[in-house]
Amino acid sequence: MLPDSHSFQPIGIVHSCFKEKFGIPRQAGLVPDAEAELELLPPYDREEAVRGLEAFSHLWLVFVFHAVRKQQWKPTVRPPRLGGNQRMGVFASRSPFRPNPIGLSVVRMGKIERVQGRLLIGLGGIDLLDGTPVLDIKPYVPYADALPHANGGFADTAPEGNSPVMFDPACEPDTLNTDPCTRERLKRLITQVLAQDPRPAYMDDNLQPREFGMRLLEFDIRWRFENGVAHVLRICKSEPGHA
Amino acid sequence: MLPDSHSFQPIGIVHSCFKEKFGIPRQAGLVPDAEAELELLPPYDREEAVRGLEAFSHLWLVFVFHAVRKQQWKPTVRPPRLGGNQRMGVFASRSPFRPNPIGLSVVRMGKIERVQGRLLIGLGGIDLLDGTPVLDIKPYVPYADALPHANGGFADTAPEGNSPVMFDPACEPDTLNTDPCTRERLKRLITQVLAQDPRPAYMDDNLQPREFGMRLLEFDIRWRFENGVAHVLRICKSEPGHA
Repeated sequence: MLPDSHSFQPIGIVHSCFKEKFGIPRQAGLVPDAEAELELLPPYDREEAVRGLEAFSHLWLVFVFHAVRKQQWKPTVRPPRLGGNQRMGVFASRSPFRPNPIGLSVVRMGKIERVQGRLLIGLGGIDLLDGTPVLDIKPYVPYADALPHANGGFADTAPEGNSPVMFDPACEPDTLNTDPCTRERLKRLITQVLAQDPRPAYMDDNLQPREFGMRLLEFDIRWRFENGVAHVLRICKSEPGHA
Repeated sequence: MLPDSHSFQPIGIVHSCFKEKFGIPRQAGLVPDAEAELELLPPYDREEAVRGLEAFSHLWLVFVFHAVRKQQWKPTVRPPRLGGNQRMGVFASRSPFRPNPIGLSVVRMGKIERVQGRLLIGLGGIDLLDGTPVLDIKPYVPYADALPHANGGFADTAPEGNSPVMFDPACEPDTLNTDPCTRERLKRLITQVLAQDPRPAYMDDNLQPREFGMRLLEFDIRWRFENGVAHVLRICKSEPGHA
């Protein structure tokens, strides 16, 4: 007999700097300047429901991988950490392609503010796509959740995330018609995202370098890896409505 | 417009030493000898799906608080850590009484074995009720998940969990008609559970000491707190079928 299924309604939705899947870091915390706002949805958009949350530095978000195409469940996946050519059990991975597309990320806690009637929680160090539905928020409790000596199997150490990043003079973000604060933020974000080398695991630097595009904040960014260096080629404002 | 709801089918079910809610530690990891088996349910009961999992020392379980009575959502709860008389936002707590009754625990990983056709994952340091439906298993990845310097708000330090425990001579577990290994395990488990003082937060030691009962493994245990010491009064095998 199959067990009952369980149905959940999102309590919030993420407004993220990551407007598409490509470029999203592979875990939370890898790109400190990746920021988002979690908007609490009615009837949960009440200050009382988050009373005391500001005292915690980090939160767990339990969310839905909403942009993963529904497909037949597969028992194994190919983690990018293993070069994409070795299969691991789906339950030994944090892949979004899982029987229940539930994600789990620990993120930095920012300000809680009501803006134009909406109750927003600032988040940092995120790895969440824009529009992500959130099922639950839990405070990070270090005495229970932090196990720095746990054995992390094939993902025991953080990815290096130290690829050098260069901005072509023609595309330095300060040539953009935008305020200095946004320019600085964009430059830091691009640098941190490309330092993680978001290319698919099977890409080989020595092949003909391919140009990639990604969308961060309200900008389209074109870039290319060459001899281990990420070159940012162009940055332009996204067309309105292009998501 | 309300967002879509999301429906999930359990991928496994927990067979736990905790047969009732009373006595369950308030976080995972507090009672090291609390053990369980996670039985993977068809079609997920395949060795391939957990390939590589043994290399991790700990797992996240995303589960359903199945024994929490469905009730009207409340924006605040009274965490036992605050003595039960202060209200905190439900999203600033790990209370099971939440808009979506989803639980999150990091547990020790044991052996993976197939027993009589069922695929079982051994778990330790659990805080899960028998019969808990599990929606997802994820490996614990210390570089992303372990934030030992995070600020844990009102739950920044572990509960003391050091109440002394005495067994009345008449109920020493070794008088039970059971094998020495189970006796020893039971004694350790009772000692660790009672050291956490599982009484409701509002209980006052100085009132007339009240006798409590709880069920662990296949045993009914009667105990009482007196002058800060937990006294185990009686241990007997549970009636079959009494859950």
